[in-house]
Amino acid sequence: MIKPRTPPGVLELLPRDQVAFQRMLDTIRTTFERFGFLPVETPVFELSDVLLTKSGGETERQVYFVQSTGALEKDAEGLPELALRFDLTVPLARYVAEHEHDLAFPFRRYQMQRVYRGERAQRGRFREFWQCDIDVIGKDSLSTRYDAEMPAVIHAVFEALDIGEFTIQLNHRKLLRGWFEGQGIPVDQQAAVLREIDKLDKRGEEAVRATLQGEGFGLDASVVERLMAFSRMRSDGHDDALAKLDALGPGTALFEEGRDELRGLLAQLRTMGVPESRYALNLSIARGLDYYTGMVYETVLDAHPAIGSICSGGRYEDLAGHYTKSRLPGVGISIGLTRLFWQLREAGLVADAESSVDVLVTLLEDSALEHALALSQQLRAAGLNVETRLETRKLAKQLQYADRAGIRFVVIRGEDEAAKGVVAVKDLRRGEQFEVAEADLAGALRVEREQWRAQGAR
Amino acid sequence: MIKPRTPPGVLELLPRDQVAFQRMLDTIRTTFERFGFLPVETPVFELSDVLLTKSGGETERQVYFVQSTGALEKDAEGLPELALRFDLTVPLARYVAEHEHDLAFPFRRYQMQRVYRGERAQRGRFREFWQCDIDVIGKDSLSTRYDAEMPAVIHAVFEALDIGEFTIQLNHRKLLRGWFEGQGIPVDQQAAVLREIDKLDKRGEEAVRATLQGEGFGLDASVVERLMAFSRMRSDGHDDALAKLDALGPGTALFEEGRDELRGLLAQLRTMGVPESRYALNLSIARGLDYYTGMVYETVLDAHPAIGSICSGGRYEDLAGHYTKSRLPGVGISIGLTRLFWQLREAGLVADAESSVDVLVTLLEDSALEHALALSQQLRAAGLNVETRLETRKLAKQLQYADRAGIRFVVIRGEDEAAKGVVAVKDLRRGEQFEVAEADLAGALRVEREQWRAQGAR
Repeated sequence: MIKPRTPPGVLELLPRDQVAFQRMLDTIRTTFERFGFLPVETPVFELSDVLLTKSGGETERQVYFVQSTGALEKDAEGLPELALRFDLTVPLARYVAEHEHDLAFPFRRYQMQRVYRGERAQRGRFREFWQCDIDVIGKDSLSTRYDAEMPAVIHAVFEALDIGEFTIQLNHRKLLRGWFEGQGIPVDQQAAVLREIDKLDKRGEEAVRATLQGEGFGLDASVVERLMAFSRMRSDGHDDALAKLDALGPGTALFEEGRDELRGLLAQLRTMGVPESRYALNLSIARGLDYYTGMVYETVLDAHPAIGSICSGGRYEDLAGHYTKSRLPGVGISIGLTRLFWQLREAGLVADAESSVDVLVTLLEDSALEHALALSQQLRAAGLNVETRLETRKLAKQLQYADRAGIRFVVIRGEDEAAKGVVAVKDLRRGEQFEVAEADLAGALRVEREQWRAQGAR
Repeated sequence: MIKPRTPPGVLELLPRDQVAFQRMLDTIRTTFERFGFLPVETPVFELSDVLLTKSGGETERQVYFVQSTGALEKDAEGLPELALRFDLTVPLARYVAEHEHDLAFPFRRYQMQRVYRGERAQRGRFREFWQCDIDVIGKDSLSTRYDAEMPAVIHAVFEALDIGEFTIQLNHRKLLRGWFEGQGIPVDQQAAVLREIDKLDKRGEEAVRATLQGEGFGLDASVVERLMAFSRMRSDGHDDALAKLDALGPGTALFEEGRDELRGLLAQLRTMGVPESRYALNLSIARGLDYYTGMVYETVLDAHPAIGSICSGGRYEDLAGHYTKSRLPGVGISIGLTRLFWQLREAGLVADAESSVDVLVTLLEDSALEHALALSQQLRAAGLNVETRLETRKLAKQLQYADRAGIRFVVIRGEDEAAKGVVAVKDLRRGEQFEVAEADLAGALRVEREQWRAQGAR
């Protein structure tokens, strides 16, 4: 006998949680499609030499390699042939480069799949987790107007997910780098300074200040002070964002370019009807990844800042330089849904979902089987999700089963009901019971379900 | 520069095919939920000792093992710790055994995920492929009434997929084994004989006859002749099925048990409204897997017998004997969707799906950007999937883009239209163009879309 257990670092859900998770996935997918993004899925594994174009680095050390039994036996030298994807960006780059001539540009794709990282086992760290990504990829060039679509999609997604107030924080790498230029921070030091700025939330101002004034960096105290003041900048509302951008004063050409793009993005968000309470400048956001070159985004739940960014991304200059000579600039965002779901559940913010089953048709005696089967099929034909009990048990047991499973409606037809041509319906959510003519049952249940949904219940 | 390419044995789709594939997945999921099955998803990898409970065998040789970079370096002895699932049945057994006390029985789960097998590289053989499974698991016992739900679900799924006429072929392992008993075929030979019978389609009668009369088996020519006649039995319609069952004459207790269960299943299918053209007895079906003990199912497309079974399954006695002492009988079916999709496409039966994008809002001049953005958001609010062109290009180019991408409606607003307060809509499917007042645009497009869907277009 072998003890049944999952590997550490995975989030396996019981059915009711799975229903809740699936609804979040569906909501995200529907919203991505609403904005004209097309589905792409890639294999879970890629050829190792394709996946691991850059050698070394934290990412590579966390890669999972894949070998068939035959390959294991051969004890081949070097790396195994296959490896599990560790994000959706490298597979996207490979996909676009491989299928370049079959795709129409700008290429708008969404991809929602699991990714794999050999993280140290730790509470809240996952070795298998969902990412939900969108990207718009241009060929040769891509208007910065596409950058403004990202916050509009983020807004629509988190409105629809209905998990509380949120703010999309905006910054611009050109604004940052241009400002650094203006402060005399040399180009070859800027990336390192950006990385330190990125740590402000985690390490705190004092620690970052010490690092920047310390050996390695050796920045002037006055420069570091201005850097800190700059990084503290947050806007509150649309006009305040514009005013604070103005208040930064004149800067280098790169700085002005970043500021103009930010102004353009703010204008476009207003045109697209994104409420001004949903976006704010936050000049401390740098996004560690070196490939971001323009707009960067991070999204936080207002009531739960400790959760950190729940949706991040930015603009990059060249998606697939390792695979093709074509220049493929793009902009994209990513939602790490496994971690988000886990954190929401930890915070008690994921209610036990109702079952995906709407109705349980009970069976009280064997002679009623045919009737129960036919009735169930009628309800299904009306678009209801129906489970039929095919073995007789005490009614109390069947009700208990429905309650535990989160099924809302239980249909009961005993002798009395049969004689009257009605069925009794027990609404387990409201704790009510009512009778309805059999012919009207499907209609009545659909109305109840629609009303409930219209009230905002999911 | 590295050549971008996928590993052999995977089916990666371009967006329009991905849309078609996704619609099939959605249809299957909706139907599974209609019948009250609950979603379950398991991690892509399991602990090797949990996954590989049986040693040896074809399956194990095809397993993909997974190792993190750290584990590779350690050069650990024995098998790697993790392995990719090769079906959804072993993970289901592990899941039910692990979460036994949190599940309500009978446990009805659907699971639609990819599985992995290190198959020899060969056209039409996949190393990564989708399975779409349902199972009903009982604790201690499970009424055979649940066996009849399976063909009802199969019927509903393939009706909804609309890929042509199909027949669900039925047989019963007890009927088979009971009949073997009656022919004096010893118990310890029956499984081997069943496996030969299973090869009738592939090898042909002559070859199987030779094997059964040859050394290893040594069956009497007369027994083999009766076995062949028995295996040739097919029914045509409900009454014919019952008549042919009767015509088999009396048999052993086991035989009669199987026949009674088949009769019961037929009656229940009729009650559930499954058309009699959709099911037939086929006594040659044995399903190779040894764990089936009762009903077995195979589904074939009537016009494409060469594709083989597109949905198979059966009744088993004990799901998770390796993991728990609880007895967990069940019944289930599986659709191998990757292979099915590939074969349908090869046969020219998958039409180029329309894009998931309903509407392309064009941009003819920069001054129209704000208007295009606001209009797009209006259409989205009305539930339409909208892509907005954010860079101006010649109209012909934008129409070409929409046509190539499979987007049906293109919204055009030039100076003339703007002056009149209308937009022009080009319907690329019908090759028509019409004008509509801006305020009526969303309504008009929704009506068009609903009408099209009502006509059965997908």
